[in-house]
Amino acid sequence: MTQSAPAISSAALQTFIAQCFVATGMPKTDADIAASLMTQADLMGQDGHGVFRLPMYIRRIRAGGLNVTPRFKRLQERTATALVDGDDGLGHLVMHHATQLAMEKAEKTGIAWVGARHSNHAGPASLYAMMPLKKNMIGLYIAVGSANHLPPWGGTEMLLSTNPIAVAVPAKNRPPIVLDMATTVAAYGKVKTAAQKGETMPEGWMIDRNGAPLTNPTRAAEGFLLPIGGPKGYGLSLIFGILAGTLNGAAFGRDVVDFNADSKSVTNTGHLILALDIAAFADPDVFRAEIDAIWDEMKSSPRLPGVDEIRLPGERLHRVTAQRKADGIPLSAPLRAQLGDLAGELGIDQL
Amino acid sequence: MTQSAPAISSAALQTFIAQCFVATGMPKTDADIAASLMTQADLMGQDGHGVFRLPMYIRRIRAGGLNVTPRFKRLQERTATALVDGDDGLGHLVMHHATQLAMEKAEKTGIAWVGARHSNHAGPASLYAMMPLKKNMIGLYIAVGSANHLPPWGGTEMLLSTNPIAVAVPAKNRPPIVLDMATTVAAYGKVKTAAQKGETMPEGWMIDRNGAPLTNPTRAAEGFLLPIGGPKGYGLSLIFGILAGTLNGAAFGRDVVDFNADSKSVTNTGHLILALDIAAFADPDVFRAEIDAIWDEMKSSPRLPGVDEIRLPGERLHRVTAQRKADGIPLSAPLRAQLGDLAGELGIDQL
Repeated sequence: MTQSAPAISSAALQTFIAQCFVATGMPKTDADIAASLMTQADLMGQDGHGVFRLPMYIRRIRAGGLNVTPRFKRLQERTATALVDGDDGLGHLVMHHATQLAMEKAEKTGIAWVGARHSNHAGPASLYAMMPLKKNMIGLYIAVGSANHLPPWGGTEMLLSTNPIAVAVPAKNRPPIVLDMATTVAAYGKVKTAAQKGETMPEGWMIDRNGAPLTNPTRAAEGFLLPIGGPKGYGLSLIFGILAGTLNGAAFGRDVVDFNADSKSVTNTGHLILALDIAAFADPDVFRAEIDAIWDEMKSSPRLPGVDEIRLPGERLHRVTAQRKADGIPLSAPLRAQLGDLAGELGIDQL
Repeated sequence: MTQSAPAISSAALQTFIAQCFVATGMPKTDADIAASLMTQADLMGQDGHGVFRLPMYIRRIRAGGLNVTPRFKRLQERTATALVDGDDGLGHLVMHHATQLAMEKAEKTGIAWVGARHSNHAGPASLYAMMPLKKNMIGLYIAVGSANHLPPWGGTEMLLSTNPIAVAVPAKNRPPIVLDMATTVAAYGKVKTAAQKGETMPEGWMIDRNGAPLTNPTRAAEGFLLPIGGPKGYGLSLIFGILAGTLNGAAFGRDVVDFNADSKSVTNTGHLILALDIAAFADPDVFRAEIDAIWDEMKSSPRLPGVDEIRLPGERLHRVTAQRKADGIPLSAPLRAQLGDLAGELGIDQL
C-alpha cells in the first residue's frame, strides 16, 4: 500500500464496517465492537488484518461458516482460568469477551488465562495483548493461525501455522512495548504482498519441497514458510498451537481448516489471552518508569554501521497510529473496489 | 564430550555434588535438592548446565556472591501469583521453592505465576518447566540469562542475554514435549564448545562489531550472538527479560552482572515459573492422548531429502536420559580434573 493511496478517516471506515456486519444480521452492538477493533487494526498499520479481511468475513458469514448471533458459553471456569466456547462467532467478538473476562479475574487473583474454542480469525494479535494495558496489566495473546503454512522441522507436510504471539507491556511516558510476531521468518501476508507487487522474496523466507530456497512468491504454493531459528521456531509454533488450540479443544495440526480456501466449514479456531496484574509484583508507577528507562537504554545503544535507529517492539505501530489518526487510513485502489462491490451486494452506502 | 569419556553413575555424581555443597556450609537438605537437580541436568544431556557449573558455583560461594543459608521471603502474594526473594541463594533452590509454590496455587486457581528476584543461575530451563508435569500441569519457565551476549537489534552494546524459555507438556504413552530454547540462534555454551574443539562456527551464530559474520569462536569476545529471526528474537529476549527480570525487581539490561567474570557481586538473577492445571481446560487423560496423537502426526510427516527423522522438542532429552540412566554420565578428562581439584580444596572424597 503506497502512501499516495487515497486515505479515509477512521470514523468513516468504522461506520462502513459496522454497516456491512449489520446488513448480514449481526446485532448492532456486536457490529460496533467488531468494526472498532478492525479499524484499530488498520490504524495500527496492520494492513493485512483490518478491513482487508472484511470481504472474506462476509463471504464466510454468507456461506454459513461464521455465526453472526453467537452465544458465548463458559465451558469451564476456575478462579483464575476459563474456557470460552465462541459458538463460531467472529474472532474479534470472542476474544473481546475473553479478554474482558481475563482482566476481571486478574484484578482479583493477580493473573488469569482464558482460552477460547469455536472462534474465528480475530485480526492482529496485538489488539488483544494491548487491551489489559489500560488496567495496568501486561497482556499476552496466542492464536492458532487460520491456515497451515509450514511442516514440522525437516518435514514436508504442512501441519503447522505461523501461530503468532503478542505481548504488551505498559510504559510511563514512552509508548507501551508491543511485541507482535509470527513464529515464521515472514508472515504469509508478506508473501502475498510480494506476489502482488511482482517482487522477489529474500532467501530464508521459504523453501520448496526439496529444501531449496524459494524466492518467487507466485510459486508460494510449491513450498513452505521457514520458522525463526529453524527447529526453535518449529518448537514455538508447535507449543503455541497446543496451548491455544489443543488445550482448548480447538483445531490444530491436520484439523486446521484453511479459511482462505473454505468459507463453509466452521474453523474451530483457538486462542488464549493471559492478563497479568503488575500490582501483584511491583508498584505499577515504578514499573512503568522502569520500562521507560529500558526503552531509553535500548535506543541509546551505539549502532552497527548503516543503522539509523534502534527500534523497540511496537514503535512502528505507535508511529503509524498517530499518523493515520491525523491523515486517515490509506486504502489501495483494488481494496477500495472490492469494498465498493461489497457495499453494492449488501445494499449499503458506498465508502 | 565424546562417548568414550569415562562415565560415572548418577548416584555417585549426586553424592559428590551434595558433599561439595555441604563442605561450603550449605544445609544437607538443600545440598541434596541442589545435587539432585544438577545431576538431573547432566542426565538430560544438558552438559553445560550440570556439574560443569559446580566449580563456578563453589567459587561464587567462597567469594561471597552466593548465600548458602538463604531465607526465602514472599514479598508479594495474591491467590494466583507470588514474588519470591531468593536472598541470593543458589538458583536451583530458589526455583525449586518457587515452582512448588506455583503448583500448589495452580491446583486451586487453575493457573499460577511465581516470579523470583535475588536468585542465581539455576541450570537448564527445562528442569523447572518439567516439575509441574507430575501434577498434570503444563510448566513454563523463563529466566534472565547470567551474562549479556547480544545488543538490541541494530545496536552494538550488549544489553540483552540469551534469556531462555522452556515449556513442558505431558503426553500419555509418548514422552512429554519439552521445548527448551535460548532466544539466540546458538546458546553461548555452543560457542565455548566450538572454541574448545577448535571448530569454526557456521555463519548466522555471531556477527562482529561491523555486522560481518564472525565464525572464529576464539574471537567471540569481539562480537555478539544473533537472535532467532533477527528483530523477532531481539523482541523475545527483551520481553522475557522484562517479565523475568524487571517485573520481579531483578537485574536486566545494563544491571546484569556477568557471572563468569565476577563471582563476588550478587547477581540479583530473576526467573519466573508458570504452572497451568490441564484439568481447568480439559480432561487430562483425553488431553494427554491428544498430545500422543500430535506427537505421531508430526513424526509421520513426509520428510525433506536427506532428513532421517522428524523430532519433537525434548525427544533428544528423553533419549539421552534413558541412555545415561543405564550407562552413566560421561565426564570429560578436563572436567574430571577440575572436580578432582575441587574435592581436594574442599577436603572431600574424590569422585
